[in-house]
Amino acid sequence: MTKVKILTLLTDFGLQDIYVGVMKGAIASINPDIHIIDLTHQIPAQNLAAARFCLLNAYTYFPQDTVHVAVVDPGVGSKRRGVAIQYDRGWLVGADNGLFSGVLAQSPAIAAVELTNPDYWQVPNPSNTFHGRDIFAPVGAHLASGVTLAELGETIDPDSLIQLPLPKLEISTNEISGCVQYVDHFGNLVTNIPANLIDNDSCSVIVQKQEISYGKTYSDVEIGEVVALVGSHNWIEIAVRNGSAREKLQLDWGDRVIFKKSINN
Amino acid sequence: MTKVKILTLLTDFGLQDIYVGVMKGAIASINPDIHIIDLTHQIPAQNLAAARFCLLNAYTYFPQDTVHVAVVDPGVGSKRRGVAIQYDRGWLVGADNGLFSGVLAQSPAIAAVELTNPDYWQVPNPSNTFHGRDIFAPVGAHLASGVTLAELGETIDPDSLIQLPLPKLEISTNEISGCVQYVDHFGNLVTNIPANLIDNDSCSVIVQKQEISYGKTYSDVEIGEVVALVGSHNWIEIAVRNGSAREKLQLDWGDRVIFKKSINN
Amino acid sequence: MTKVKILTLLTDFGLQDIYVGVMKGAIASINPDIHIIDLTHQIPAQNLAAARFCLLNAYTYFPQDTVHVAVVDPGVGSKRRGVAIQYDRGWLVGADNGLFSGVLAQSPAIAAVELTNPDYWQVPNPSNTFHGRDIFAPVGAHLASGVTLAELGETIDPDSLIQLPLPKLEISTNEISGCVQYVDHFGNLVTNIPANLIDNDSCSVIVQKQEISYGKTYSDVEIGEVVALVGSHNWIEIAVRNGSAREKLQLDWGDRVIFKKSINN
Repeated sequence: MTKVKILTLLTDFGLQDIYVGVMKGAIASINPDIHIIDLTHQIPAQNLAAARFCLLNAYTYFPQDTVHVAVVDPGVGSKRRGVAIQYDRGWLVGADNGLFSGVLAQSPAIAAVELTNPDYWQVPNPSNTFHGRDIFAPVGAHLASGVTLAELGETIDPDSLIQLPLPKLEISTNEISGCVQYVDHFGNLVTNIPANLIDNDSCSVIVQKQEISYGKTYSDVEIGEVVALVGSHNWIEIAVRNGSAREKLQLDWGDRVIFKKSINN
Repeated sequence: MTKVKILTLLTDFGLQDIYVGVMKGAIASINPDIHIIDLTHQIPAQNLAAARFCLLNAYTYFPQDTVHVAVVDPGVGSKRRGVAIQYDRGWLVGADNGLFSGVLAQSPAIAAVELTNPDYWQVPNPSNTFHGRDIFAPVGAHLASGVTLAELGETIDPDSLIQLPLPKLEISTNEISGCVQYVDHFGNLVTNIPANLIDNDSCSVIVQKQEISYGKTYSDVEIGEVVALVGSHNWIEIAVRNGSAREKLQLDWGDRVIFKKSINN
Repeated sequence: MTKVKILTLLTDFGLQDIYVGVMKGAIASINPDIHIIDLTHQIPAQNLAAARFCLLNAYTYFPQDTVHVAVVDPGVGSKRRGVAIQYDRGWLVGADNGLFSGVLAQSPAIAAVELTNPDYWQVPNPSNTFHGRDIFAPVGAHLASGVTLAELGETIDPDSLIQLPLPKLEISTNEISGCVQYVDHFGNLVTNIPANLIDNDSCSVIVQKQEISYGKTYSDVEIGEVVALVGSHNWIEIAVRNGSAREKLQLDWGDRVIFKKSINN
């Protein structure tokens, strides 16, 4: 038996409309055996940083040879390139706008093409507004069905792919200064400080000049209290036990967070 | 190998409750091999016009022989008929309330039955409030598994199926007057003016006495500006680049939009 | 052909983030043939009563041998146990916090284990905050793939599993006093009064000292009017035809509802 192929979808289309449904219809029309998994369709509209963060923190959990189709595409209809990228765990398909740069910083591209061959699109004349349905989903379905990268278009240099850098971290001897790079559904604030920068427990987190607890898990603090901890994506995360840190601390995307290495004071 | 059968679901049940989940359970109980695709479950409550619009704009993207189960059913428990309809691309299952009339205006019914045979329901005595789970999903699963239309109930005349007409278009020599027939997740306003009515670029769109740009894609205007364009469903659509036309123009479902054919002035 | 195995997911993770997507990735990495069905991911945050209610009202609609993975887990990272339970219709996997007690009151446990064997986890050292991805989803995937309960950890006494009792019903000769145990997407108020307690039609429902109609279906009353009826889960439910009972009556989770058995007055 052929092994089931996995294709994931990540978009900012939301679930109210039929946009996601028709992408799945386009995929099923090419190969109904593909197992489609939704990563999320609720990326804040056109927020490439959030999309990059989500794919970066998700891709390692999927089987080898998964195809990730990601469509957050503020430039649809303009001259930005559509691309398919092969990397060591599978394939990435979408617009060349930096969305994939987080994944590729960890798992470099092996090869890439610009999607110039309409034979693998939904229709020869795709709409100007919905390349997700007309180009990216069909191309992903073809990749998951054995079509090679070279058939999809012209080879491009992976080094030419657009980068979307992480927000800047500033590190001094006693202090790490980062920011909120993602806010989740619970109101947990995910910073851009990797857990491995924090090497001992003699630390304090200063948020808006206020020191908060640094713990191991939510239940290290009382209900309603703030705790900083290593989140499930291995970034330092600020949470409120059974509550929303976003609301309690009035912090949001991009806001600054300072982590002090105090020496037992 | 038997080909995988596709069954889509479209409802106004939302995703908060288990309504959609148990419909899928009922389907999997009949045939776990069916590939279920969600079209949307966020049709505004009991908005048949929105449901009709969504199915009409989605069905052509699905493979031949797809079964579409659509449950927006303000009359559940009353005497309205439950129906299954065969048309040239597959089957439609749901209440006879006009939801399917958009699809059937394009792809006429071949045959139709009223769902009167309880052998193909979840239980012989279905609930009065949830025919989606108790009748429509099971009937859809049986159709996707090879049961014939005739087994499901009594033949009815397809011409007797209820129509839900499109909002009216008024067309004169110099003007097309339509309305907003759908508002999507991005706040894009989809009019009821088909793209093929507009045959050249010497046109202007008047919304609330204000002229707006008529372009080809979002990026033809600056960020935050309004543009009218041919949307992905081939209706004229009013959008704001990287923003919400609904909010910016304060327009909503049913509101009027006028399209002037200006002659190079 | 091996029969497709069904695994359901129920969480309070919402659909905004990648939490649900990576649980599915973890499952597909173990066995890509599993058919995953979402029950709901929009349980109100950490609302165990709602989670218990949803699973209780859903499980009977799924095929024999379905694995239900349910993750509403306020105590994640604390000493609460992770468990897998075998019962007559299949398996339940999640935290031991009472979420499963509704199902098990109807369909008693056959056997249970504490999840102590890391060989069946995503990683030997799971995160402190996301056991859904690191433990429960992988364990569910292994159960759906033929791993036995005994391999997953140490046997525990099913009677030691934590109970989450239903809100109390008070029944006298002329009156049943219950409460709202669930509020759905439409604003329908589901009480904790089972339909079979109401044996005739000479009843009245008193809500906030006001008598409302007791009907059979929504269409027994005019649009906008309140009706009490037997809901699709076989609890007495209070609804507004084509509207929201929650808004109209200003009732919410836990609020009291009185049902009078009037004698033909």
